[in-house]
Amino acid sequence: MELKIGLIGCGTVGTGLLEILEKKSDYLKEQYDFEAQIVAISDRLKGSILIPEGLDIKRLLSLLNEGKRIDQYYGEGKTAELIEPLDMIEKCEADVIAELTYTDIETGEPATGYIKKALRTGKHVVTSNKGPAALYYSELRKMADQNNLFFRIEGTVMSGTPVFSLFETGLAGNEIREVKGILNGTTNFILTKMELDNMDYAEALKLAQKLGYAEADPTADVEGYDAVAKIVILTNVLLEGGLTPVNVRREGITSLTREQILAAKAQGFRYKLIAQTRKAGDNIEASVSPQKLPLSDPLAGIMGTQNALTFDLDLMGKVTIQGAGAGKIETGYSILSDILAIHQRLKR
Amino acid sequence: MELKIGLIGCGTVGTGLLEILEKKSDYLKEQYDFEAQIVAISDRLKGSILIPEGLDIKRLLSLLNEGKRIDQYYGEGKTAELIEPLDMIEKCEADVIAELTYTDIETGEPATGYIKKALRTGKHVVTSNKGPAALYYSELRKMADQNNLFFRIEGTVMSGTPVFSLFETGLAGNEIREVKGILNGTTNFILTKMELDNMDYAEALKLAQKLGYAEADPTADVEGYDAVAKIVILTNVLLEGGLTPVNVRREGITSLTREQILAAKAQGFRYKLIAQTRKAGDNIEASVSPQKLPLSDPLAGIMGTQNALTFDLDLMGKVTIQGAGAGKIETGYSILSDILAIHQRLKR
Repeated sequence: MELKIGLIGCGTVGTGLLEILEKKSDYLKEQYDFEAQIVAISDRLKGSILIPEGLDIKRLLSLLNEGKRIDQYYGEGKTAELIEPLDMIEKCEADVIAELTYTDIETGEPATGYIKKALRTGKHVVTSNKGPAALYYSELRKMADQNNLFFRIEGTVMSGTPVFSLFETGLAGNEIREVKGILNGTTNFILTKMELDNMDYAEALKLAQKLGYAEADPTADVEGYDAVAKIVILTNVLLEGGLTPVNVRREGITSLTREQILAAKAQGFRYKLIAQTRKAGDNIEASVSPQKLPLSDPLAGIMGTQNALTFDLDLMGKVTIQGAGAGKIETGYSILSDILAIHQRLKR
Repeated sequence: MELKIGLIGCGTVGTGLLEILEKKSDYLKEQYDFEAQIVAISDRLKGSILIPEGLDIKRLLSLLNEGKRIDQYYGEGKTAELIEPLDMIEKCEADVIAELTYTDIETGEPATGYIKKALRTGKHVVTSNKGPAALYYSELRKMADQNNLFFRIEGTVMSGTPVFSLFETGLAGNEIREVKGILNGTTNFILTKMELDNMDYAEALKLAQKLGYAEADPTADVEGYDAVAKIVILTNVLLEGGLTPVNVRREGITSLTREQILAAKAQGFRYKLIAQTRKAGDNIEASVSPQKLPLSDPLAGIMGTQNALTFDLDLMGKVTIQGAGAGKIETGYSILSDILAIHQRLKR
């Protein structure tokens, strides 16, 4: 079965998705009877394209790899007027809109507006954008449900490492006592370097920046804001809570010293930046803070930029999944994974 | 939607399943629109019961807890002639047969015969029995496919910790480079005790036996036969291989000494009994053997009776899932998990 896909935003994640679709089209057809047609792209910087019959992904990728604009696809030297995202969503005949613009965790815009437009015009939505998911998940999910559409957000937490779909399928029937994870690869990398390579915080941060794991302004990672957004999303999706980021107790890693880390190590403990959430009666207790874990904790062994999440469940007890938390292909895959989930449901 | 279920075998796993269904019927109805009716049970030791309208699970469980026969359900002191499994499968009107008899890894019987009978009479099959899965998976799966039926085996590897359903849904689209895991809790417990509590092999085995983790004759666990059966199942399901247990290179943990384990520890390594499989051209390389893992390996941190599996994937790289590998409720849950997966597919 074929699905028509429109991309709103075509940066790293969009390119990752296109590369996967290009490389694996035969495999996806053969194994899952899945064919993707990219029928629309709108990117404010790179231009737009609307091709109802679906475009040649290989040709588009070679333009993108040469740093050219998307509308060069219509022909060398030609340019086309930008079809703005909202117009593109309305106009195109996509089955699924992949919302891949930048995250604004304060407002959730412009992504939330794009998602609403897509749901209003009868299109399923998949996104790895934390803004809409952290701020408006319940509202958007309700809109989707009312219109018999899917709104899926696998990539918002741990990139393509399955978290939401794991709970939805492989762990179905379990109730959650607690969810606890290492959801930020940058801070986990810094803590790993401070412990194993004996760096101080400033050195480790500098190395993370050099390797592209940390931004020039590392605040969102090191002060815990990124992990807060993710624990809010996990809470609202898995515990049906109504949290926003301000409800979460937050402490970053900037005041942790190498001395504290080494003292913990000597006692058989390891510092990790832990995001956790659980129901306590009618309330939800959610927090992000550095914690001294015993080495027997499954999260204590997660090193470098890896992410991991432990579900504590009424039937299965603790189940932990570990994998990549970022990356072009990994986050591109999160979008494919959600699209395949929609495809499997529509097929039946 | 209601599913009618027949249990063939009603030992630990069957009781675990019944306890879950009893405790969580409201939750399953509300969250998944799932209702289970147990319409038939046949257990060679405990007797049989055939109740087309579905039985009162609570009442049955109290009989089982008192050590009474299943046919006492018809009334105190009454007995009924045993309806043999094959007759019961034919006679009952179950949608799904849960095959829960004992594992015979040499012949796969009598379970394989029961499964074939169920598939021939139009019933889906779920099982945690390693015999049929290790010896006849391809044949049984083909039979199921041809009859438009499901044959699911989540509980054969890592009890209810999702492995097959994880690959089927949350990791869909990935191709496997290698699968590698700690699939036997008994040997992992013994190795953990030898390393952390400085026991020798005989002491650690004795403790495992005392705690009920190891059998009086521990051969199947400590010589690696149990892990071999599981890696065969993983190979045949995930890599579409045609292995049988004799194709797997096998080495147990009985010749490992505490000295070797402590020497490895001093070098920053840890011994684990690793089951692994991968395609190498047209061949499959599968093995079970003790390996010295660097502590950075996600499997190195798996302690005690826990199990874990690492998928090495073309898109996502390494994804590791860790959880229980055995237990009454955990294996009972594996059966529920497969039944819920069937339910979700039939509902649409």
